[in-house]
Amino acid sequence: MSRPILTLTTDFGLDDHYVGAMKGVILGICPNAQVVDISHGVKPFEITEGAYTIAQAWRCFPPRTVHVVVVDPGVGSSRRPILVEAGGQYFIGPDNGVLSMVYLAEPAKVRLISNQHLFRQPVSRTFHGRDIFAPVAAHVAAGLSPAYVGDPIDNYLKPDFVKPHRTGKRTWIGQILKIDHFGNIITNFHVAEFGDLTLRNFQLEMGPVCVNVLARNYTECSPGELFLVLGSAGYYEVSMAQGSAAAKVKCESGAAVELMLW
Amino acid sequence: MSRPILTLTTDFGLDDHYVGAMKGVILGICPNAQVVDISHGVKPFEITEGAYTIAQAWRCFPPRTVHVVVVDPGVGSSRRPILVEAGGQYFIGPDNGVLSMVYLAEPAKVRLISNQHLFRQPVSRTFHGRDIFAPVAAHVAAGLSPAYVGDPIDNYLKPDFVKPHRTGKRTWIGQILKIDHFGNIITNFHVAEFGDLTLRNFQLEMGPVCVNVLARNYTECSPGELFLVLGSAGYYEVSMAQGSAAAKVKCESGAAVELMLW
Amino acid sequence: MSRPILTLTTDFGLDDHYVGAMKGVILGICPNAQVVDISHGVKPFEITEGAYTIAQAWRCFPPRTVHVVVVDPGVGSSRRPILVEAGGQYFIGPDNGVLSMVYLAEPAKVRLISNQHLFRQPVSRTFHGRDIFAPVAAHVAAGLSPAYVGDPIDNYLKPDFVKPHRTGKRTWIGQILKIDHFGNIITNFHVAEFGDLTLRNFQLEMGPVCVNVLARNYTECSPGELFLVLGSAGYYEVSMAQGSAAAKVKCESGAAVELMLW
Repeated sequence: MSRPILTLTTDFGLDDHYVGAMKGVILGICPNAQVVDISHGVKPFEITEGAYTIAQAWRCFPPRTVHVVVVDPGVGSSRRPILVEAGGQYFIGPDNGVLSMVYLAEPAKVRLISNQHLFRQPVSRTFHGRDIFAPVAAHVAAGLSPAYVGDPIDNYLKPDFVKPHRTGKRTWIGQILKIDHFGNIITNFHVAEFGDLTLRNFQLEMGPVCVNVLARNYTECSPGELFLVLGSAGYYEVSMAQGSAAAKVKCESGAAVELMLW
Repeated sequence: MSRPILTLTTDFGLDDHYVGAMKGVILGICPNAQVVDISHGVKPFEITEGAYTIAQAWRCFPPRTVHVVVVDPGVGSSRRPILVEAGGQYFIGPDNGVLSMVYLAEPAKVRLISNQHLFRQPVSRTFHGRDIFAPVAAHVAAGLSPAYVGDPIDNYLKPDFVKPHRTGKRTWIGQILKIDHFGNIITNFHVAEFGDLTLRNFQLEMGPVCVNVLARNYTECSPGELFLVLGSAGYYEVSMAQGSAAAKVKCESGAAVELMLW
Repeated sequence: MSRPILTLTTDFGLDDHYVGAMKGVILGICPNAQVVDISHGVKPFEITEGAYTIAQAWRCFPPRTVHVVVVDPGVGSSRRPILVEAGGQYFIGPDNGVLSMVYLAEPAKVRLISNQHLFRQPVSRTFHGRDIFAPVAAHVAAGLSPAYVGDPIDNYLKPDFVKPHRTGKRTWIGQILKIDHFGNIITNFHVAEFGDLTLRNFQLEMGPVCVNVLARNYTECSPGELFLVLGSAGYYEVSMAQGSAAAKVKCESGAAVELMLW
């Protein structure tokens, strides 16, 4: 029998004891769990970056995987904990939009986590990752029916989602979703909507910088040249062969990107 | 049957092969082990920070967990390796105080690790994590009785432990135990001794900065405002909503903190 | 029955979803796998550093371990994926030299990975870690015979390997292989060739800095003093007690080191 998989995505970093404490709680409840770190390097409090990270990773996991996502600037306030069932998998986190790239992309059932018998007592006001999210996730991984976690709700957060908007017949304004470890600039132009980009029918502007080359991989262009490439997540990225595009462009996550097609 | 859990806390960082090498040794001896990283981001050679990290994490783990803690500036010298039995769990590391927040807080039996048959041969002079601590821990996790590891000792290190000391009828001098990933400043004022702090009966001074607001969570105050909050570890922390208190106060781990109560 | 072990060594960092995605793919194919991170902190695109990292770690793992090594500046180009069988273990990565410190050190069989039925479809042009290396490794870990992965080849990359060269009767020029987390400067002078170094019969020069003390461990010398020590990997390292030798010497990976013996 295969072991239940439980993943963790947080902005806790790896230098403190926080992630280890969550794993201890999980293994105490579900000793058979296979705990997988997706990332603990989400920028502190950056809900959008957390949402992007889990959205890119979850489809690689097998059915019934339980994903815990804690990017939670409102911990201890009235924001609610939720459990999302979507795509045959489970997602647990705060109702602050961090799970929205999952439940807005897939048919989903969202439950309010209300069964306090599942929590670690006493519940700290500042560490719901350890006391609420980890134990609830471990119980679900161990086979607890979601119905015992809480009732379905409809009024979960539906953030005005990050998609490019059209500003003219041939122009769109999008934004930078993330700068990755290699300095690739991931835009929110997705192949599903912008699949007609070809090698030379577009221009992408970020401030004073203009990109008009589409490459098929990271090695087609010369070192130092900026180009657009379809990233593994389906979003177009501005990249540079053997270097950091972000360092060259000097841009940040959240900045505007203008696309012109002809 | 559930799998033995073995945790790792070190100052090795994650960029080198050191942690991976330890895990290979562990799995070679105890193939069934569930290895959990608590942190490898302890500041190099900072024994106090390592002691704090394991002390905050271990209570979240189930009975019989084996914790390996390697912050070991004296590797290869005459400092001794020890095995601690406390709280139903096991702790393995150098006798330099890094395990003292466990054995000074709980009834404990401390053994000198002396059975060289358990070591990986030849023992490197610079990497006891791989050659002594990892294999001994793996044998204990696999079920070896602690009596085979070595005899109990009494003369293990009992560091003058980091607690605030009273300087007047209403004043104490404490210190900063750690700055965490979010910039929270963790002091050594613990709720067990300072449980009578209320919203407005205290003043905390760190150099020129003075904090006199106690909040129940990270969202009660305005962004940019410094406040005191009871952290998940039981210690009072100086925090700032949606920002780094440490960056604002410009303080470092080890610095003095003065508390006045009235 | 013990679980198959699969290790990961990459330059992906830990902040993005890349490593998590690979683990999801692996567990979908081989649910029983024990996935171990060796390092994801190899400097981006530094093939030599990746080669050094896996070469130092793999001997600590038990037979039949499958090692995935992805430092792959040429992803999506014509560089080939390979499977190496050596020392009773398996190694999977690009044919760019990142596995060369394994197959040049041990009798090895190298296969071209050609069986596309094992790949995750569609294969992204930029993320072979997820779509080629992870699934092939998971199939091998699950017991697939290497013969199904692809045929043996001879024309794999044999890089002019990083060894010191002799420049005179008593002098050699070597280089810095890596600066580790503690600031130890790892040279490519290996004990197997330079075993006759004694306490006072040598001089090592890095730019204006000269080291002529050999210590047996990190604590023999005074804080701040530079010394040579035999590292756990068999290479001589320049170290400093309780401090960073690299910060003092101000050197970088790849720089030249001159050794004089008498």
